[in-house]
Amino acid sequence: MDVRIINPFLSAAINVLKTMAGIEPKPGKPFLKKHEHAQGDVSAIITITGAAYGTMSLTFTESCIKAIVANLLRIEVTSIDDEVTDAVGELTNMICGDARGHLGEEGIRLEAGIPTIVTGKNHIVKHINNGPRLAIPFETPHGEFIVEVILIKDRYKL
Amino acid sequence: MDVRIINPFLSAAINVLKTMAGIEPKPGKPFLKKHEHAQGDVSAIITITGAAYGTMSLTFTESCIKAIVANLLRIEVTSIDDEVTDAVGELTNMICGDARGHLGEEGIRLEAGIPTIVTGKNHIVKHINNGPRLAIPFETPHGEFIVEVILIKDRYKL
Repeated sequence: MDVRIINPFLSAAINVLKTMAGIEPKPGKPFLKKHEHAQGDVSAIITITGAAYGTMSLTFTESCIKAIVANLLRIEVTSIDDEVTDAVGELTNMICGDARGHLGEEGIRLEAGIPTIVTGKNHIVKHINNGPRLAIPFETPHGEFIVEVILIKDRYKL
Repeated sequence: MDVRIINPFLSAAINVLKTMAGIEPKPGKPFLKKHEHAQGDVSAIITITGAAYGTMSLTFTESCIKAIVANLLRIEVTSIDDEVTDAVGELTNMICGDARGHLGEEGIRLEAGIPTIVTGKNHIVKHINNGPRLAIPFETPHGEFIVEVILIKDRYKL
């Protein structure tokens, strides 16, 4: 499938963080190898269905997500509690919604699932799929996060 | 929605582990409170779409999943490597497939997404949704695992 369907998710992550949290991430070297997986302290995983089919995940270091949520909610964030994970879920819905909006304008209609949030020091996120994959680490002044998108056009090719 | 749509996922987890890995899990006290989340060392997350819409997750302790994969693949499992996480993905597809098969016989057609596997000591899995939820811890001779299913009939009620 066309990797151009994946790119809007990447742009959406940058746009939403910039607009909602005032943080402008800088892209780093993509993960290209099959055994390279996202590693961090807080992850959000959301499924995409419709014209294409797959998963988007966001994996943050603790310092990075604390700064993002502090800016987003205008509160002091000292620990990764339910308020923080709910905000990460909301951010994920916004990023997915932004990407889906742009793709919808081009006639590619996608739907999004329920975000799942994982917390735990240095966990690793791995998607069991061989479809086209975009995995890019981003640097912020507060630490790193990784955006990973896997999408296939025909689900039965899984 | 009818919680009976959720139950087949629970039965499928028990059936698949018993049949494929020779391990018979015993159910414990369900998680009923909103702030009670699954905690473990290896998790599998998969999205369900179709007649109902939601997420199934399985969260294992390291000792439990090592024993399951060792029995499943008839190998010695010393660490949580790619072979183990691929096997967990396969187990997740089997469990989801078994549940979908039983529901399909009753005219409830569901589809499943790409499994996402999370590894990391004592991570916590939280689903951002207020839909009907079934979260049950299971005991095995090798340690605990938790099955969590959240399904809603009408996705737009999210």
